[in-house]
Amino acid sequence: MIAGKKLLVVSAHAADYVWRSGGTIAKYIQGGAEVCVVVLTFGVRGESNDLWKQAGATADKVKSIRKEETLAAADILQLKDIEFWDYDDYPLVIDRMMEERMVKKIRDFAPDYIITHDKYDVLNPDHNAVCDFVFRCSVISNSNGVCIEGTRTTKQMQIFGFEPHQTELSHYVPGQFVDITDVYDKKVAAMKCFKAQSHLIEYYTQRAFMRGNHARRLSGCQNYKYAESFSRVFPVVASELL
Amino acid sequence: MIAGKKLLVVSAHAADYVWRSGGTIAKYIQGGAEVCVVVLTFGVRGESNDLWKQAGATADKVKSIRKEETLAAADILQLKDIEFWDYDDYPLVIDRMMEERMVKKIRDFAPDYIITHDKYDVLNPDHNAVCDFVFRCSVISNSNGVCIEGTRTTKQMQIFGFEPHQTELSHYVPGQFVDITDVYDKKVAAMKCFKAQSHLIEYYTQRAFMRGNHARRLSGCQNYKYAESFSRVFPVVASELL
Amino acid sequence: MIAGKKLLVVSAHAADYVWRSGGTIAKYIQGGAEVCVVVLTFGVRGESNDLWKQAGATADKVKSIRKEETLAAADILQLKDIEFWDYDDYPLVIDRMMEERMVKKIRDFAPDYIITHDKYDVLNPDHNAVCDFVFRCSVISNSNGVCIEGTRTTKQMQIFGFEPHQTELSHYVPGQFVDITDVYDKKVAAMKCFKAQSHLIEYYTQRAFMRGNHARRLSGCQNYKYAESFSRVFPVVASELL
Amino acid sequence: MIAGKKLLVVSAHAADYVWRSGGTIAKYIQGGAEVCVVVLTFGVRGESNDLWKQAGATADKVKSIRKEETLAAADILQLKDIEFWDYDDYPLVIDRMMEERMVKKIRDFAPDYIITHDKYDVLNPDHNAVCDFVFRCSVISNSNGVCIEGTRTTKQMQIFGFEPHQTELSHYVPGQFVDITDVYDKKVAAMKCFKAQSHLIEYYTQRAFMRGNHARRLSGCQNYKYAESFSRVFPVVASELL
Amino acid sequence: MIAGKKLLVVSAHAADYVWRSGGTIAKYIQGGAEVCVVVLTFGVRGESNDLWKQAGATADKVKSIRKEETLAAADILQLKDIEFWDYDDYPLVIDRMMEERMVKKIRDFAPDYIITHDKYDVLNPDHNAVCDFVFRCSVISNSNGVCIEGTRTTKQMQIFGFEPHQTELSHYVPGQFVDITDVYDKKVAAMKCFKAQSHLIEYYTQRAFMRGNHARRLSGCQNYKYAESFSRVFPVVASELL
Amino acid sequence: MIAGKKLLVVSAHAADYVWRSGGTIAKYIQGGAEVCVVVLTFGVRGESNDLWKQAGATADKVKSIRKEETLAAADILQLKDIEFWDYDDYPLVIDRMMEERMVKKIRDFAPDYIITHDKYDVLNPDHNAVCDFVFRCSVISNSNGVCIEGTRTTKQMQIFGFEPHQTELSHYVPGQFVDITDVYDKKVAAMKCFKAQSHLIEYYTQRAFMRGNHARRLSGCQNYKYAESFSRVFPVVASELL
Repeated sequence: MIAGKKLLVVSAHAADYVWRSGGTIAKYIQGGAEVCVVVLTFGVRGESNDLWKQAGATADKVKSIRKEETLAAADILQLKDIEFWDYDDYPLVIDRMMEERMVKKIRDFAPDYIITHDKYDVLNPDHNAVCDFVFRCSVISNSNGVCIEGTRTTKQMQIFGFEPHQTELSHYVPGQFVDITDVYDKKVAAMKCFKAQSHLIEYYTQRAFMRGNHARRLSGCQNYKYAESFSRVFPVVASELL
Repeated sequence: MIAGKKLLVVSAHAADYVWRSGGTIAKYIQGGAEVCVVVLTFGVRGESNDLWKQAGATADKVKSIRKEETLAAADILQLKDIEFWDYDDYPLVIDRMMEERMVKKIRDFAPDYIITHDKYDVLNPDHNAVCDFVFRCSVISNSNGVCIEGTRTTKQMQIFGFEPHQTELSHYVPGQFVDITDVYDKKVAAMKCFKAQSHLIEYYTQRAFMRGNHARRLSGCQNYKYAESFSRVFPVVASELL
Repeated sequence: MIAGKKLLVVSAHAADYVWRSGGTIAKYIQGGAEVCVVVLTFGVRGESNDLWKQAGATADKVKSIRKEETLAAADILQLKDIEFWDYDDYPLVIDRMMEERMVKKIRDFAPDYIITHDKYDVLNPDHNAVCDFVFRCSVISNSNGVCIEGTRTTKQMQIFGFEPHQTELSHYVPGQFVDITDVYDKKVAAMKCFKAQSHLIEYYTQRAFMRGNHARRLSGCQNYKYAESFSRVFPVVASELL
Repeated sequence: MIAGKKLLVVSAHAADYVWRSGGTIAKYIQGGAEVCVVVLTFGVRGESNDLWKQAGATADKVKSIRKEETLAAADILQLKDIEFWDYDDYPLVIDRMMEERMVKKIRDFAPDYIITHDKYDVLNPDHNAVCDFVFRCSVISNSNGVCIEGTRTTKQMQIFGFEPHQTELSHYVPGQFVDITDVYDKKVAAMKCFKAQSHLIEYYTQRAFMRGNHARRLSGCQNYKYAESFSRVFPVVASELL
Repeated sequence: MIAGKKLLVVSAHAADYVWRSGGTIAKYIQGGAEVCVVVLTFGVRGESNDLWKQAGATADKVKSIRKEETLAAADILQLKDIEFWDYDDYPLVIDRMMEERMVKKIRDFAPDYIITHDKYDVLNPDHNAVCDFVFRCSVISNSNGVCIEGTRTTKQMQIFGFEPHQTELSHYVPGQFVDITDVYDKKVAAMKCFKAQSHLIEYYTQRAFMRGNHARRLSGCQNYKYAESFSRVFPVVASELL
Repeated sequence: MIAGKKLLVVSAHAADYVWRSGGTIAKYIQGGAEVCVVVLTFGVRGESNDLWKQAGATADKVKSIRKEETLAAADILQLKDIEFWDYDDYPLVIDRMMEERMVKKIRDFAPDYIITHDKYDVLNPDHNAVCDFVFRCSVISNSNGVCIEGTRTTKQMQIFGFEPHQTELSHYVPGQFVDITDVYDKKVAAMKCFKAQSHLIEYYTQRAFMRGNHARRLSGCQNYKYAESFSRVFPVVASELL
C-alpha cells in the first residue's frame, strides 16, 4: 500500500535523487504517498564537470543552473516538497549542526522509509559521508533521551540505499527492486532536465531496462518492464514472506 | 496476503522444519495457504543422538520413533501434506534420481515460496547438501527445455533459508522476519513432540523470543512478540518498498 | 590462569559492561584478577529510553538513576575499580583529549586483556566509535615515541569485542567463549539492577543459555552451562594449540 | 598442557605435514603428546614436479622416493605413528569408503585436535577436497547414530587449518600461532629431507621467521623466535580469555 | 601485444562465449592472436527457453538450431577454431573423462589466457560447475606428474571469468576491462544470430555501453567507447604497474 | 613502458616507501620514469621505537636521524624528488589544509600511478588514515569544479596499495606483482640505511624472495626472482588482457 506512506529521500547532490530514485519517487507521489526530498548540496564542485567547461563558469552560475535543472526535474516528478540545504560539496563535511538539523527533519516528517546513498561508492567520497550521516541521524531520532524542542521520537524506519554508479566495485547488492514501468516516462523526462550530463541520461535509462530484466527474471512477473533497485540496511520485517 | 499462496518446505531431517519454520508453517496453514513439507530423511544417523542412548536402539526403532514424533508435530501444526522420502542421512548423498524427483515435485506443486536450509551450516554437512540440491532443482524446474512428462515449467519462486543452529559461525544473516505471535503456542506444542531433544525445545523457544525482540526493534511494531527469521536468496521484487 | 591477570573493560554506556561481560568480570574478580571498568558515558541520551518515559524526567535525574543502578550492579559483581568519565552520548564524539586520557589509562593499568565494543553494531553508532577509539589508543600506548609523562610503554595486549544486540546484522562472529557457569547467578543479579530495561534482562539471560549450548557443542565439555562470547581482534598466540 | 593430548594430522600429500606443521608436531611429541599423521597420497602426480624431470622417472620410482623422504622427515620429528593411505592425487577423489575409513580413524584415535588443510587453496584442488573431507568426517564421527563396529562416538575436537602456499589469494587468516622456537632446528632438518623441493625449504624456513615476528608483535612475548600459524574452524572455548 | 598470443575460451552453452566475450574474441582474432573456443553443451535444456515454445520442438531440432546460430556467430567473429563437445546441460555433470579431455586440450593448445565462467552465477548451476572444472584442469595441466601421452606440461596461464547475467547477486567484481570499440559492430552482429534470445541482444548491447562508460571513468581514456569486463582469478604479474 | 610514466608515492612515515615499494621506485627511476615521494611524517612517535631506547632521545634528535636515514635510502634508490611534509604521527590527523595541499600536489604532478597505504592495516591507524586521505584527494583532483589556482584537473590515475606488515590480518590481497629482480640490490642497500629497524630489514628482504616465488608460480616466468606486491583499488583497464 503506497497511499498514505511517507518517504524521505536524502540526496548528496542536486541530481542524485533523480538518477537513482526518480521512478520510485514519481510512483509514490502518484500513488498518494507523501514524499520529501532533501538535497544537501547543489553539487557545484563535484558533480558539474560539464558546466565548468563552459566559458565564464563561476560557482554562482553553476549553482543557479543546477537549481533550475533540479527544480524542473522535481516538477516533472510532481515532487513539491523539496529542500535545498545548500552545503558545500567535494568534500561534503558533516558537523554537529547538520546532525541536529537532520534529526529534527526526520522527527518532523516521521518517514516510513528513508532512501539515501548506499554505504560505499568507490568513486564518490561525498556519497559515503551522506550514508553514514543519515544512518546515524535515523538511529538518534529514535531515542527518547535526545530531546529537541518540538519534536517527537520516531520509531525505526526502513532505510534503502541508492545504486552507486559502478555497482560491483562499490560492493552494492540489490536488496529491493521497485517496478517503475508506469512512471518510466516521467523518470526519463526528469532526467533530461540535466542537460550537461547527457551521458548519464543514457546510462540511467539503460539501467532501468536492466533492472526491469532482473526483476522479471527473479519474480517471474512479466509486467515488470522497468525497475529501480536499492540496497537494504535492514531485513524485511512483516507478518508474511515477501 | 497469505490466503491462496503455496509454500513448499524441504527439510533435511525429521524435525528441522519444526524447529526452524514451525511457526511460519502454522501461520500459513491457518491463513489459508497450501503448505507442503518434504522430509528427505528421518535423521536416524545424524539427528537422533539421544534415541541411540536408549538400550536396544536399532535403526528401525529410531526411525519409527522419529516418524511418530514428526507426525504428531505436523498434526499440531495442522499440516496434512507431508512426504517422507526416507533417504539415508549422515551423509545425505544427492543423486540424479533425487534431482529429477525434486524437480517434478516443484513443478507439480508450483510453490510461490520455498523454505529450505541456508547455504552453510558449520556443524551439519547434510544441511549444506540440501541447500545446494533444492536451489539447483528450483532453477532447473524453471527451464522449458527440461522435459519431464506431465509437468509444466515453473516461474522463479522466492527461496528462503532456515536459521542454522549456530548462526554467526554459519555466516547466517536474517533477510526476512515473520511474526509468529498468533501461532506461537502451536509451535511450542509441536516442538514438544520431539521428546528426546529436550535441549532444543528450550533453545528454539528462546529463539522465537529473541527474534521477536529483533522484529520489534527493527520495525517499531510492538505487536511482534515472537518471530522466526529466514535468510533470503533473492532480493525483494515488488511494486513498492517493503 | 586467571589469578594475577589484569583486565580492562571499556563500556560506552552505563550498562553495556554488565549485559555483555558481567559474567567474565565476576569470574575474573572471583579468580583473583585485577579488573578495571571505564564507563565512558551514562547513556543518558541513548540508552535510557524507559527512564525518559517517566513524568518529569530530566538529564540530571536520568544520569543519577543510571549511576545508582550501575554502582549496584558493580557491587554485585564485586567490582571496585570502576571509573565514570561522564561524556555525552548519542553521539559520543571522540577528541584528542579523550585519546590521550585513554592512552594514559591503558599505560597506567597495563592490562593483559581489553574488552570493549566490537567493530560494528548496526544499531548503535556510539559502540562503533568506542571500538575504533579504544583500538587506536591501545596501539598508540605500545609506542615508545609517544611520550606521556609518568607512563611506560605497554606491549600489545589481546583485545576482545562485546556481542552487539543483533549479532548477525552486525557481522559479529564469536572468537572466544568464556564459561560463566559458576558466576551466572551474580550476572543475573547484576542485570536486575537496571530496572528500566527489563526486556534486556530476559534477553541477556537467554543469551547466556544459548552461548552455553554453543560452548558445549563446540567443545564437548558438558560442564559449560552458561557462557559469554566475544569477538577476537587478534589470533591466539601461544605455545600450544588452544 | 601438551602432555597427554592427542593430535591427528591429515596431510593430502607426502610432505604437506612437514612444511606446514612440522614444528608443532615435533613440539607435541617432545612435550609428551600422542601424534598420528595420516598421509592420504604420496603426491606422485601433483607434488613431485622436480622428480619427474629426472630421466627414467616412473610413478613407482617417484612414489618410492617420496616415501623414503617423508619417512626420513618423520624420523627427525620423532614421529612414529604415520600411516600412508596411498590414494591417487591430482585429483584426489573422495568416496564413501574413504569417508568410513576416516570416521573410523578419528573414532579410534579420538584426537583432542585435528590439523589438516585449510578450506581454500587457490592453487591446489586436492587440498580443498581434503579440508572438506576431514571436516565432514569429524562431524559424522560425533554422531551416535553412525554405528561402526568397534568404535565409540567422539566429542567435537578443535580443528586447525594449514597455511596454504599463497596465503592471501587463498583467503587464509591465521587464527592460532604456535611458538616453535625450541624445535625449529628439527623442523628445518626434516624439511631438508625433501631434496627435490629445495625452493620450498627456503620458503618455509623464512615462513617460520615471519610468523615468529608476527607472534612477538601480537603478544609482546619476545621469546617467540619462530612460529607456525594455523587457521581456526571453531572459536576458542575455555574457562578464561586466551 | 595481442599478436601471437593464444586465447582459450570455454563456454558452458552455445551462446555464452558470444554474449560475454564476443568482442574480446573478435579483437584477438583481428589482432593476430590464436583463439580457440570449446563449447561444452548446446544449451538444449537450459538455455533455449524460447525455442521450446515453438510447436513441435524436440531436443534434436533445438540442438540443430543452436548449432547453426552459434556457427553463424563464430563466422562473424572470424572464429575458425571452435569445438562442440556436445555434453548434456541442466545439469552439466563433470566426470573424470571430461577432466582428462580438458587437461589434454589445455596442454595441446597451451593458452596464454583462459576465459571461462566466473566462480558463481546465482541463477545458473552449470556455469558454476564449468568454472570449477576448468580451473581444476588448468592446475592439473601444469603438473609434470600428470602424464598424458603426447602432451607437454603447461605453465600457469592467466584465467579470466565471464560476467554472469546478474552481476551483483553473483558477487561478480570486474578485474579487467577490455576496450572493444573497434570490434563492437562485429559483436552486435554476432549476437543477432541468436534470434530466439532477442531480449539478451539488447541486454548485452547495453552492457558494452555501460562497461565502456566505466572504462573511461576508471582510466580517463576517452577513446574507450565500448568494453567487456572480466573477473580475475590471479593478480597481474608483470615487470611494471598496469 | 616505464619510460615517461609518472609515479607518485605517498608514505605515512619516513621508511614506509622503502620497505614496501623501494624496488618499484628504483626500477621506475632506472627505467626513465618520473618518481615523486611525499613523506607525510618522520614517524617520530610511531615508527622509531628503537631510537627512543637510546639514552637522551628527544623528538628533535629522532627526527633528525630519521631524516638522515631516509635521505640516504632515497639516494641509493636515485630518488631525487622527495618531499617531507613533516606532520605529526601517532596519530596522524588529517585536516582540510592537508587535503587542499595534496590535491594541489596531485594536480601539479599529474601522476599516471599513485602508490600509497592499503585500506586497512590492523596494527597501524596512521596507515589507514593515509589511504583514505590520498584516495579522497585523488578523486577530488579529478573534478573540474574544484578550482585551485594554478592547477589543472587530472584524469583518474591508477592507485596501488602497499603491503601492510601483517597481510592476512589486514585483509590485504595482492592485485599486482612487480618484478624487482634487476634492482633488488638497491632495495636491500636502501633498507640497510634504517639501522635502528634491523628486524625489518631481514623481514622485507625475505618478503621480496617470497613475492618472487609467488610471481614465478602465478606467471610461469622463471626470471622473476624478487618481487614486490601491491593491492589494486581499480581493475585493469586496457586494450588487451593483462
